[in-house]
Amino acid sequence: MHHLIIGAYTTSRGIPFIRDEIADFIRRRDGKEGDRDYTSPDNIFMSDGASPAVQQSLRMLIRDANSGVMIPIPQYPLYSATIPLLGGKQIPYYLDEENNWTMRVNELEQAVSRAREQGVNPRGLVVINPGNPTGQCLEHRDMEAILDFVARHKLVLLADEVYQDNVYTSKPFVSFKKVLHGMGTQHRHNVELLSFHSVSKGMLGECGKRGGYVEMTNIDPAVVEQYYKLSSIGLCPNVTGQLVVSLMVNPPRPNEPSHALYYQERGAIYDSLKRRAELVVKQLNQLEGIQCNPAEGAMYAFPRITIPRRAIELAKAEGHAPDAWYCLQLLARTGMVVVPGSGFGQRPDTFHFRTTFLPSEESIQQVLNDFKTFHTDFMNKYRD
Amino acid sequence: MHHLIIGAYTTSRGIPFIRDEIADFIRRRDGKEGDRDYTSPDNIFMSDGASPAVQQSLRMLIRDANSGVMIPIPQYPLYSATIPLLGGKQIPYYLDEENNWTMRVNELEQAVSRAREQGVNPRGLVVINPGNPTGQCLEHRDMEAILDFVARHKLVLLADEVYQDNVYTSKPFVSFKKVLHGMGTQHRHNVELLSFHSVSKGMLGECGKRGGYVEMTNIDPAVVEQYYKLSSIGLCPNVTGQLVVSLMVNPPRPNEPSHALYYQERGAIYDSLKRRAELVVKQLNQLEGIQCNPAEGAMYAFPRITIPRRAIELAKAEGHAPDAWYCLQLLARTGMVVVPGSGFGQRPDTFHFRTTFLPSEESIQQVLNDFKTFHTDFMNKYRD
Repeated sequence: MHHLIIGAYTTSRGIPFIRDEIADFIRRRDGKEGDRDYTSPDNIFMSDGASPAVQQSLRMLIRDANSGVMIPIPQYPLYSATIPLLGGKQIPYYLDEENNWTMRVNELEQAVSRAREQGVNPRGLVVINPGNPTGQCLEHRDMEAILDFVARHKLVLLADEVYQDNVYTSKPFVSFKKVLHGMGTQHRHNVELLSFHSVSKGMLGECGKRGGYVEMTNIDPAVVEQYYKLSSIGLCPNVTGQLVVSLMVNPPRPNEPSHALYYQERGAIYDSLKRRAELVVKQLNQLEGIQCNPAEGAMYAFPRITIPRRAIELAKAEGHAPDAWYCLQLLARTGMVVVPGSGFGQRPDTFHFRTTFLPSEESIQQVLNDFKTFHTDFMNKYRD
Repeated sequence: MHHLIIGAYTTSRGIPFIRDEIADFIRRRDGKEGDRDYTSPDNIFMSDGASPAVQQSLRMLIRDANSGVMIPIPQYPLYSATIPLLGGKQIPYYLDEENNWTMRVNELEQAVSRAREQGVNPRGLVVINPGNPTGQCLEHRDMEAILDFVARHKLVLLADEVYQDNVYTSKPFVSFKKVLHGMGTQHRHNVELLSFHSVSKGMLGECGKRGGYVEMTNIDPAVVEQYYKLSSIGLCPNVTGQLVVSLMVNPPRPNEPSHALYYQERGAIYDSLKRRAELVVKQLNQLEGIQCNPAEGAMYAFPRITIPRRAIELAKAEGHAPDAWYCLQLLARTGMVVVPGSGFGQRPDTFHFRTTFLPSEESIQQVLNDFKTFHTDFMNKYRD
């Protein structure tokens, strides 16, 4: 039983007993394979949601204007907004849309070579798994290849794993740390890994609480101390958010009174999200000019839309990116808000949008019907 | 009656009805003098405590390595830590210890001249009022002179007013905005002012909730939009903290059931803080080699200590600043933690420490007795 004054500052790292609980959660999730236990509460820093931890980690990586950080395209724009603010360079690499948005080491190698040719020094690699906005879940063999890539190039791996509970395929989520556990000591003892988690996703979805953390693996203790020093400038993460992290990583146990209800509610939310993910992707794929990869994880579908030539010209004449123009039309006609692919980055001359599948099950078929009506009218109006 | 989902993201600015309440609070505090109402919820941004708002404001001010921000010496180290992180230059100005830590425009002018000679471009002036760590409350005429100074030099005034409720003198707190209201239109329509407030101080002291805000006056709307854009990267401040801001700025009204109890509790906390502030300063001033200005505001006494020559030499031999060494001795002997003046900055060859007067009234006399024993022994041991 812990007694807490939730109105008082805590240590800048986050409350010790909660960091202990996070460490236990990670050990349960990833095991303790290999010849040493990597997991320590001293290598965990709590934060107001995952975003400040990501930003502070990027700050640690970027030491001058030639420091580069590899980011996926498409990507959640926290990264593309923060890296230039910190005076660093983005090194974009493309996800492979034709192969369900997977990552190709060949593409990573090319991105590093291009960066080095331009005098940019790659310092870190951002991987979002499950993907945002793209919803893919990486395969174990691809994760091993990524860990080998960062080892060869001495990059810090920033693993944005905030959607780790939102996996709708038959294969369970595997963290980069767990994959690292299964590799040789050359990797296991050396790959510098930062993993981010948050209470804003999963079945909790307590995004207003701003609870999150970063766990560091194979980071030099002197670097961890500098991270601590930076954290201390802002005093501490909000305590209520820290407590929600505690609830997330330490759910009710079998002998506890709320155990059955917790797993019943959690299961119902999960099953519903999975049904909605499949429904949205299936119905989007039935429409003319829309191709959508499966939403294996996260909370998003990211369909590719073929925008007719005439609509592209009209959009440009009005000073909008074609997909932004499409999304504005959708908003005006239906009140639905989706985010244009140009906000996340995409291959030139391709167009996408990101939609969540968060409308309730009662309403989602109507949402899809409204979207279908809009899109059909749009295509009828502008079809080449 | 407002219904809120506290687990959901809010707008990055903070919940609209709470920003309305903040605007009302500011109007009640500062009046609507002059020919227009400066106060708008659109110019208020909420944050996780005041610190992130200060940091984001400094980010807006620092545009290159020659951008300078004037900071008081001594100062709360949020400023001295953040400015170099953002690639800017600190322009230190000294508070006048002999005159109760007041600010002298003459000193500000000299600091600006020194900076310009070194190629530094002053962009903003930080004023902490009531002072941290120095506890002074500025006089109305000095605040007018400061507003005139920033107008002449086209500086943004960053008014750290988080201790606005912690004033123990007979004169009430006056905000820089209220002083500005009383000045001519040349100032009133032009001085760019950012004022920070927080739930962490005052009689609330809910520092673990991380609630705060910045209010902007005379800031170009295009600049406000850029501030909004920066805020949106981190999504939103924690919602519980936002609600505590609502409670702070919108206390119980006379017709509400908790009105009497609220003011009774608040008054008791205030009276006790005031008694402790006076007690601590009085008893510190009775000790050999200690001179302490009155703690007119905030939560701190910041006594100057005359450290004997032999103790200075011993400290330096051990690689410590003399005041840090003194504080470490105090910690080892009594378990009391105070912060050395070297953490805040001080005139060369002067030494201070910051202590709070937050120990309970039941315990504070014992704390002062223990301190007296330590200090007397220290002086007996090292006296020149």
